[in-house]
Amino acid sequence: MCPTPDAAPATNGRANGTDASDPSHPGFTGIATQRTQRSSPYQPVGDFLSNVSRFKIIESTLREGEQFANAFFDTETKIQIARALDDFGVDYIELTSPAASEQSRKDCEAICKLGLKAKILTHVRCHMDDARMAVETGVDGLDVVIGTSSYLREHSHGKDMTYIINTAIEVIEFVKSKGLEIRFSSEDSFRSNLVDLLSVYSAVDKVGVTRVGIADTVGCASPRQVYDLVRTLRGVVNCDIETHFHDDTSCAVANAYCALEAGATHVDTSVLGIGERNGITTLGGLMARMMVADRDYVMSKYKLHKLKDLENLVADAGMSPLPLSSALHTPDRPLQLSTFVTLINLGNQLTSAVQINIPFNNPITGFCAFTHKAGIHAKAILNNPTTYEILKPEDYGLSRYVHFASRLTGWNAIKSRVEQLGLTMTDAQVKLCTQKVKAMADVRPLAIDDADSVIRTFHLNLTADKERPLLPNMTTEEQMKFEKAEKELAGEPEQKSLDKTVDQETNGGVQA
Amino acid sequence: MCPTPDAAPATNGRANGTDASDPSHPGFTGIATQRTQRSSPYQPVGDFLSNVSRFKIIESTLREGEQFANAFFDTETKIQIARALDDFGVDYIELTSPAASEQSRKDCEAICKLGLKAKILTHVRCHMDDARMAVETGVDGLDVVIGTSSYLREHSHGKDMTYIINTAIEVIEFVKSKGLEIRFSSEDSFRSNLVDLLSVYSAVDKVGVTRVGIADTVGCASPRQVYDLVRTLRGVVNCDIETHFHDDTSCAVANAYCALEAGATHVDTSVLGIGERNGITTLGGLMARMMVADRDYVMSKYKLHKLKDLENLVADAGMSPLPLSSALHTPDRPLQLSTFVTLINLGNQLTSAVQINIPFNNPITGFCAFTHKAGIHAKAILNNPTTYEILKPEDYGLSRYVHFASRLTGWNAIKSRVEQLGLTMTDAQVKLCTQKVKAMADVRPLAIDDADSVIRTFHLNLTADKERPLLPNMTTEEQMKFEKAEKELAGEPEQKSLDKTVDQETNGGVQA
Repeated sequence: MCPTPDAAPATNGRANGTDASDPSHPGFTGIATQRTQRSSPYQPVGDFLSNVSRFKIIESTLREGEQFANAFFDTETKIQIARALDDFGVDYIELTSPAASEQSRKDCEAICKLGLKAKILTHVRCHMDDARMAVETGVDGLDVVIGTSSYLREHSHGKDMTYIINTAIEVIEFVKSKGLEIRFSSEDSFRSNLVDLLSVYSAVDKVGVTRVGIADTVGCASPRQVYDLVRTLRGVVNCDIETHFHDDTSCAVANAYCALEAGATHVDTSVLGIGERNGITTLGGLMARMMVADRDYVMSKYKLHKLKDLENLVADAGMSPLPLSSALHTPDRPLQLSTFVTLINLGNQLTSAVQINIPFNNPITGFCAFTHKAGIHAKAILNNPTTYEILKPEDYGLSRYVHFASRLTGWNAIKSRVEQLGLTMTDAQVKLCTQKVKAMADVRPLAIDDADSVIRTFHLNLTADKERPLLPNMTTEEQMKFEKAEKELAGEPEQKSLDKTVDQETNGGVQA
Repeated sequence: MCPTPDAAPATNGRANGTDASDPSHPGFTGIATQRTQRSSPYQPVGDFLSNVSRFKIIESTLREGEQFANAFFDTETKIQIARALDDFGVDYIELTSPAASEQSRKDCEAICKLGLKAKILTHVRCHMDDARMAVETGVDGLDVVIGTSSYLREHSHGKDMTYIINTAIEVIEFVKSKGLEIRFSSEDSFRSNLVDLLSVYSAVDKVGVTRVGIADTVGCASPRQVYDLVRTLRGVVNCDIETHFHDDTSCAVANAYCALEAGATHVDTSVLGIGERNGITTLGGLMARMMVADRDYVMSKYKLHKLKDLENLVADAGMSPLPLSSALHTPDRPLQLSTFVTLINLGNQLTSAVQINIPFNNPITGFCAFTHKAGIHAKAILNNPTTYEILKPEDYGLSRYVHFASRLTGWNAIKSRVEQLGLTMTDAQVKLCTQKVKAMADVRPLAIDDADSVIRTFHLNLTADKERPLLPNMTTEEQMKFEKAEKELAGEPEQKSLDKTVDQETNGGVQA
């Protein structure tokens, strides 16, 4: 049902005609390409609603990302990030409203003058004052927004739906008269009244808005809700549909994917997902998701080997010194050791270049995204990487790593390492060596160097007169624990099973 | 369409009858409670398939988590984690196979003797040798697994479907004869042949397996695929359905949720998602997702205020010194400053307690999950937190933080801070003060202390004979930039708009 990296469905790689300045722009672009099925009958059959094979990215690191708690981008940093996003291949770059501050306005103008391939948008309130200021900056389009949920209408701006629709039409007609793209989005769409929502979208579609936007501002939406709402909207408006998902409940990438399946045309992202609270759909996560869905299309548009540099650029970029204070924002709770150490780390970061860390579990670029540990995994990966990898590390300029220095290791992983080290052993010798590595890993955590040392010394001992200790720096207690663990391994049914079934990987770390 | 924290749908809080030792166990437990609709007609209507309001957690930090690249849990750490998971309220705790190593077997026995409320499972290959060893450890049940995809059958174990079914039946009957729970799972289910899958599940269901398991071992599945497969399976078997999702494409939480919607009964999680590669469904992410779906049920079962401590415990727990070497696993690429600093940090971590950092964007416990920055957000949040929060920080023993020290701030946020500082100003004075904070934030990043200092000095200057500088340590250049930014702010349309519309928040950081 899932394609493998080598069996991605074919696509013609054609982008959807969402360019409003394109005279052939059909308005409704929700007709998917029928994809040729290759290796498996369980791949999703292309359907007419889906834009999975022709989505566009509206990259909002310089707008939503600037709302991240410790983001502070100066002009130079903004320009550097804009250039990197453009080089990566995003379709649009969205900037903070020029009405936010005088510097924001100047930065907007400066980025518009860079002559990037990506279109430049700015994100402003649905208000004529903001719209007038925005059109003067040289942007290609405006993303306007207003809250439509009862929560926001009551507690934020206090306007009724008639006022919202009338203002929207005034702003849209003004921006169109200037020859620019205009998107109208509701805010908090998933807690808005459906009839209100559809009424306002239908009204702005009739006056020729470029895109309508759906925003899960509070991160409450679930994938099937997203599919349903976008699919309903797809039947109501002819224009493009942009979507924006917050990640409060860890569904932001999945929701974006389901929106595309239902006919949305554009997805908002930010690098590492930075944004209000814990952020939005991550650019990297969306890339991973879409690579599985349509590798050819993604590879044809985006420079994936630059993803890691782009993430590092944003992670290192000027962030404000908030985290130190912010980490203390639960003063009613005792300070834990970990919090203390985190504070020290954060303190150090104030004077270093690293402002946030790439999360250890980040898709694609997390430090172990292509690391395989369990013995049964290692064996299969060494035979054929697609067994346990749906993404190919080389697509991202990265490489695979098979972890062999643990008690979950197996003899295939050790054999591979023995070969990498340029040593020669029989399979029986490799199996004995594997036992020693496993026994050592039961005693204490092994670094790769340690495991290599065990393997090399084991190899030396095979031909040496006098047996050397496998690790030079072991305490007497560790030596005793090691010998005990080794004896137990040798005497256990596991060992019998290991002797018996030569083709079967050792049982460590059975994986599902 | 989404409930708010204060308008969660009612539920009777009844858990599903998935206890196989329960004589009233109906086998098929996929009948959801019809939920009372409260505040919004757009909340999902309870359907008969859904187990969203009665799911169970199989917590796999001590099995899947041990396969994480730098996990090394000694016996003491394992016991500490098992106790913490039990206290948190997870239904099951899954342990590494006793066949992995002698220490793994001993640890399994030790944890079984703790007398926890949670049931203890161990995860083994579908093989009589492993099953015999496992039943001797004192566990409540076995999770057995075998690869069913053609990739794994070819490159991993090399067995055909008949062999798989026959072995499964033998193991299941053996484990049942010992009075233990038994789950049979395929591996890489989403790349397996559907007919093969359903055949094997149907066969094991007929011989009385406790649960069948679906595993997205490579992280390729998308939410609607998951819904479809689980829904199909729900019609084929009568037993419970367990699900296991890897996060390679950022869909692991969303996939688990869709599985529950389709009638799955159990979800595998690990703390912070640690596991092979970038891991599986995170316990915290699932909690966030389910709190939005059925707050009453989640609150009745799980001690959410202990989530942060549990995450810290696992993040701090004994991890092996792999990351230092692993960070270098792309030796073909030049070492960047950020990588260098990361290496130094990792180096430091080898001797410190912190082994992995909580990701900055972690659901619930990420350092800014409840931080609000944009001016328009701040105003609404101060009026009513549900405007921009679907989760309530106090449910997790955490608190909200409204960020006011940035150029995206607005006068409502500053007014709130003025009151927190015990100062008195008129609205006009607060607005003038807001301009000064914004101008200062245009010049350089502001710490909270800096912003407080600006506010206090501004307040002092209101009644002082001689005007003091707003920040004591400004350079002449910064002072000039500040005065320029202030003048620009005062002379711009923004200012006119700000004067004109007293009820309208300043335009910084419009959010969707």
